Amino acid sequence: MAGSIFGNILKVSTWGESHGAAVGAVVDGCPAGIALSEEYIQTFLDRRKPGQSDYSTKREESDNVKILSGVFEGRTTGTPISMLVENTSHHSADYSNIKDVFRPGHADYTFDAKYGFRDYRGGGRSSGRETIGRVAAGAVAMKILEEYGIEIFAYVTDIGNVSIDRTRFDRAEILKNPLYMPDHKAYEEASEYLDKLIEDKDSSGAKVECIIKGMPAGVGEPVFDKLDARLAYSIMSIGAVKGIEIGDGFDVVKATGSQNNDEFYMNEGEVAKKTNHSGGILGGISDGSDIIIRAAFKPTPSIFRKQSTVTVNGQDAEIEIKGRHDPIIAPRAVVVVESMAALTIADLLLMNKSCKAFTE
Amino acid sequence: MAGSIFGNILKVSTWGESHGAAVGAVVDGCPAGIALSEEYIQTFLDRRKPGQSDYSTKREESDNVKILSGVFEGRTTGTPISMLVENTSHHSADYSNIKDVFRPGHADYTFDAKYGFRDYRGGGRSSGRETIGRVAAGAVAMKILEEYGIEIFAYVTDIGNVSIDRTRFDRAEILKNPLYMPDHKAYEEASEYLDKLIEDKDSSGAKVECIIKGMPAGVGEPVFDKLDARLAYSIMSIGAVKGIEIGDGFDVVKATGSQNNDEFYMNEGEVAKKTNHSGGILGGISDGSDIIIRAAFKPTPSIFRKQSTVTVNGQDAEIEIKGRHDPIIAPRAVVVVESMAALTIADLLLMNKSCKAFTE
Amino acid sequence: MAGSIFGNILKVSTWGESHGAAVGAVVDGCPAGIALSEEYIQTFLDRRKPGQSDYSTKREESDNVKILSGVFEGRTTGTPISMLVENTSHHSADYSNIKDVFRPGHADYTFDAKYGFRDYRGGGRSSGRETIGRVAAGAVAMKILEEYGIEIFAYVTDIGNVSIDRTRFDRAEILKNPLYMPDHKAYEEASEYLDKLIEDKDSSGAKVECIIKGMPAGVGEPVFDKLDARLAYSIMSIGAVKGIEIGDGFDVVKATGSQNNDEFYMNEGEVAKKTNHSGGILGGISDGSDIIIRAAFKPTPSIFRKQSTVTVNGQDAEIEIKGRHDPIIAPRAVVVVESMAALTIADLLLMNKSCKAFTE
Amino acid sequence: MAGSIFGNILKVSTWGESHGAAVGAVVDGCPAGIALSEEYIQTFLDRRKPGQSDYSTKREESDNVKILSGVFEGRTTGTPISMLVENTSHHSADYSNIKDVFRPGHADYTFDAKYGFRDYRGGGRSSGRETIGRVAAGAVAMKILEEYGIEIFAYVTDIGNVSIDRTRFDRAEILKNPLYMPDHKAYEEASEYLDKLIEDKDSSGAKVECIIKGMPAGVGEPVFDKLDARLAYSIMSIGAVKGIEIGDGFDVVKATGSQNNDEFYMNEGEVAKKTNHSGGILGGISDGSDIIIRAAFKPTPSIFRKQSTVTVNGQDAEIEIKGRHDPIIAPRAVVVVESMAALTIADLLLMNKSCKAFTE
Repeated sequence: MAGSIFGNILKVSTWGESHGAAVGAVVDGCPAGIALSEEYIQTFLDRRKPGQSDYSTKREESDNVKILSGVFEGRTTGTPISMLVENTSHHSADYSNIKDVFRPGHADYTFDAKYGFRDYRGGGRSSGRETIGRVAAGAVAMKILEEYGIEIFAYVTDIGNVSIDRTRFDRAEILKNPLYMPDHKAYEEASEYLDKLIEDKDSSGAKVECIIKGMPAGVGEPVFDKLDARLAYSIMSIGAVKGIEIGDGFDVVKATGSQNNDEFYMNEGEVAKKTNHSGGILGGISDGSDIIIRAAFKPTPSIFRKQSTVTVNGQDAEIEIKGRHDPIIAPRAVVVVESMAALTIADLLLMNKSCKAFTE
Repeated sequence: MAGSIFGNILKVSTWGESHGAAVGAVVDGCPAGIALSEEYIQTFLDRRKPGQSDYSTKREESDNVKILSGVFEGRTTGTPISMLVENTSHHSADYSNIKDVFRPGHADYTFDAKYGFRDYRGGGRSSGRETIGRVAAGAVAMKILEEYGIEIFAYVTDIGNVSIDRTRFDRAEILKNPLYMPDHKAYEEASEYLDKLIEDKDSSGAKVECIIKGMPAGVGEPVFDKLDARLAYSIMSIGAVKGIEIGDGFDVVKATGSQNNDEFYMNEGEVAKKTNHSGGILGGISDGSDIIIRAAFKPTPSIFRKQSTVTVNGQDAEIEIKGRHDPIIAPRAVVVVESMAALTIADLLLMNKSCKAFTE
Repeated sequence: MAGSIFGNILKVSTWGESHGAAVGAVVDGCPAGIALSEEYIQTFLDRRKPGQSDYSTKREESDNVKILSGVFEGRTTGTPISMLVENTSHHSADYSNIKDVFRPGHADYTFDAKYGFRDYRGGGRSSGRETIGRVAAGAVAMKILEEYGIEIFAYVTDIGNVSIDRTRFDRAEILKNPLYMPDHKAYEEASEYLDKLIEDKDSSGAKVECIIKGMPAGVGEPVFDKLDARLAYSIMSIGAVKGIEIGDGFDVVKATGSQNNDEFYMNEGEVAKKTNHSGGILGGISDGSDIIIRAAFKPTPSIFRKQSTVTVNGQDAEIEIKGRHDPIIAPRAVVVVESMAALTIADLLLMNKSCKAFTE
Repeated sequence: MAGSIFGNILKVSTWGESHGAAVGAVVDGCPAGIALSEEYIQTFLDRRKPGQSDYSTKREESDNVKILSGVFEGRTTGTPISMLVENTSHHSADYSNIKDVFRPGHADYTFDAKYGFRDYRGGGRSSGRETIGRVAAGAVAMKILEEYGIEIFAYVTDIGNVSIDRTRFDRAEILKNPLYMPDHKAYEEASEYLDKLIEDKDSSGAKVECIIKGMPAGVGEPVFDKLDARLAYSIMSIGAVKGIEIGDGFDVVKATGSQNNDEFYMNEGEVAKKTNHSGGILGGISDGSDIIIRAAFKPTPSIFRKQSTVTVNGQDAEIEIKGRHDPIIAPRAVVVVESMAALTIADLLLMNKSCKAFTE
């Protein structure tokens, strides 16, 4: 109930601080009989691993996952899957300077307000390393979704004023550049922008888009646990996310009903929609179209400029953050967005198994 | 688990279809000893009641709430509070024409895909009347928040291309106009726009903003059950919401860290922030500033133009919706946004009672 | 979270006090498409209704159930089923004498200790009327179990020193006598015993046994949510229950492994057990044999003798309870035991739908 | 939702198979600021460790716990506490003979029925090693209870026909003999009985009693989450438990109300009870007296006699179990009973923090 457990059927319990012994996740409720290996999960973790470009920290974190339970002879057994990644490269000394002051834009102050004190080393539980558990668990969910033929992928569409040109959209490009943008030219422009920000000791916000393909119609619960509500919940729970859109998102404000409604038609015997303003969800339930989600990521709060702040003892102070910090959060968060989407969809798909009468 | 229960400590179970006998909510986990009356709850329900202006349906729904349990001699007893509103004015005949076709933009198709059939009368469980349970329960939460000195209010900022002018922001104005806008001039412009849309048999989207004042720092859980994640979840669960922003929302995409970070300073012995880009939440936990939420509402999908669609038997068809439908959803949803925010905050406040050691 | 919600998939939220306007239950998560009527539910409620014999109170409570939502054209829609029973015959005046003293064996003192005050009228939420919501919801669960061919029935085996003779066990007899005993001779002896106790202004304890037939193997979760653990939880949650046994229950203390193990054998191509000491559950999961549960019910605490007690203001006092009270709780609780068993089994059956891989 | 998570506020997620890499638990919702160390937790684990006497297996399992998260500078931080115990001494080869047959009295058959296959090595998830996670988590709960001055201890009262003589009850004796009996003479008699059973290749059942001292009145939820219901749930969830009693338990069947009611009186300004037939719980809420729980443990199902059974392929077979198995389960389970009781009480105590109005 301290909110580190996610899901209703597929329940994920994550744990771990930046500078503790390890971080990890326990997945309870994964169906039995699904092929799962450390190698498979590692491919997802490698995408959030730092040190892969100029835009992510150079720490040597191998981030190798171990499966400790729930898998036997290469298949899930139906019992909890415990996964662990050791914290190998941390140097607690690096963080002693932030022990007594609150970093602006970070959770230092709010953790102290909530708990009375905090593990100040590297952000503790509010560190980006917390997402390792999400990605490991998300990989399990992805494997479940594979069985349904559902595919999830995300990418960065906007960095500062640079937006992708959708006529140049190239899915293959996403994994080829370190900013995970589906448009090589936009990537180059964004790179330049980020280089300038690094020089300026500053950081950038970004927008991430996530697409879910192959989604059957009929998934999601009609009132509180709407598919879009659960997606908003899961993706807003990623640190640094400040906005969520489904389908046309905030553009619906200016739209009229006749513009926004997606008309139905029959397409080769299947119900189809002429447009997809809804982003694949109607009344909280999937309508069979692609699900489209967008998330706004704030700029990395750890900037190297001098900033005003206060101490834990209530005195005005200045802080100059040192160390290694990404100038942008979103690229490494792309796989986290995919993971949270996968966990959400898998959970609601499993929940859907009990919604119809048995005679059907 | 069909997702009609909200909350972890303060649990709300809502029920009811548009054309059933009644709609209602059961609130479990409300602390004992809080003053609560039907009159108090009614003031909230009256704000979502239809028939109050040209922009809401003319049906005579009295929507009077009855408290059936959990209150004794004017105070909550700590046991479940059951509240009920009878459905009085429905005429099932009105809806027979939509029995066999799927209305574009509605949940007709997705309910059928999920459950195999649906209560087609007036949208059944996906009707706007579903929000009565939310508002009744939200009123209980508001009463809890009063004890903490927390205040929640929402209003419409944008309708189509009409936006409020923040220099004219007047909180008292909100309850004076039927569009719940805090700027009388914007209200007039929006009225004109809506009049034209009604003539056009069309409808409009809108943006709603919600402010939470008096929030103590330290509320919210650090990982999945972040305060912003729970707010996104609860407000996205309102039908027709397609986007959620906290604080600067999607504007963070273009911001830099030095622009977006809120610097701390000491203000009369209290930790304060020079700005509030974060919208009152850092790391998923309240930072003591106002909480700022914005929600995008899609245009009413029930428009009176002829639309293409398909039948439940899989044939192309046309539909011309009849009856009475609001040309805009957001104004009557303002109190629903407040209600969901109140339920979320009250739940996390109660959850917070167990986060610190006892010796403190 | 005040603990008035039961279940994981099939969630039941009950509400209501003895002397409020009504009592009821909301069932969320019932699959769509199941035939359900008020008449069906009423047959269960009629079995717990008071006033049917010398051994149950003479109050005229009609206890007629209304279904307010979740059923359309005679079938469940998959949305919450709200059921309500009005409280018609209460006379609050009857209870004013217990406002200021704590009745021994009742929850008066503990409610006050927990909440600071209580609805003292007829026990409020701790009244036996609280079980109406359980029985109404249990009827819904029974209807689900019918689809699986699962049958649940309970009966009284022991009242004071009177035990049924299992060689005379006659299932048809159960509904024929007001003590719900499956042995007419034992019923007659128990009647005599109860008559004497009534004369003595006293009351009796009893034992109830519940059998679940047609249970498929493989239902139940292996660790905390074991089938037996969930049954113990649900049935111990019925007021007055002080003991629970599964299968051989406390007799296993004296047994050896060679006596207690149920050997397997093949029976017409099916795995079968030579004995059923386990009561149909191994490792928390059903083994395909009959499930056998026993519950010990304490004597009615409302006895008409003078008893020592204390006042709410902390002074020694005497109490002489007036009014109408059953001299035994168990017979009317038989249907409550069945209901809680049904809710437990249905919930775990629905949960089981997500435990296996999809390729199978 | 595969049922490996326990609790509402204090949530425990356990994981691990007998022959996997490790077993462990994650505790979410532990208040911040509580002193906690590996040494403290280890004292509890050492009590369930095998190899300590003739009556427990001789395997050399060091069972050393590591705290991986949630503790900083010796105090809990409020974030999830992950604890891990490596499996060091297993020899998978030992178990190949049970791969294809179902052991009577074990969960082999039911796991196969549920999941389609199983990790057959040493019982997999249904092994007694599963309780390591419970005990590690229980130790955290014990530490919370210390802050409230609540004490929990359990012991064995009956083994076969040997019962403790309550006039010889000696709490100090419990930890002095390997059967955890509070009566040395009974221990000696039980030893003789067990020696004979070992010779006979057989095993014994037993009864465990658990006492909770220092419990404040007012803890527990009035309907489904009654304190006794939660205790029954948590303790019945321990493998091999077939019966649960609270207070007088099954003796209430023969009691009358005048015998069973505990009369109240004032004792030095406090409400007290003349007797404690209720076992410290009235209406599901603690009444301030000692809480008394008894559990029946079945005999170890792994006996070395030849037994009839069937193969996974549906053929009659015989099995002769080899290896090292305790002739009795209960003694090593004593600390597991205490742990589950501690988790239950701590969870309901934390839940209780939100039940009263704030003005009090």
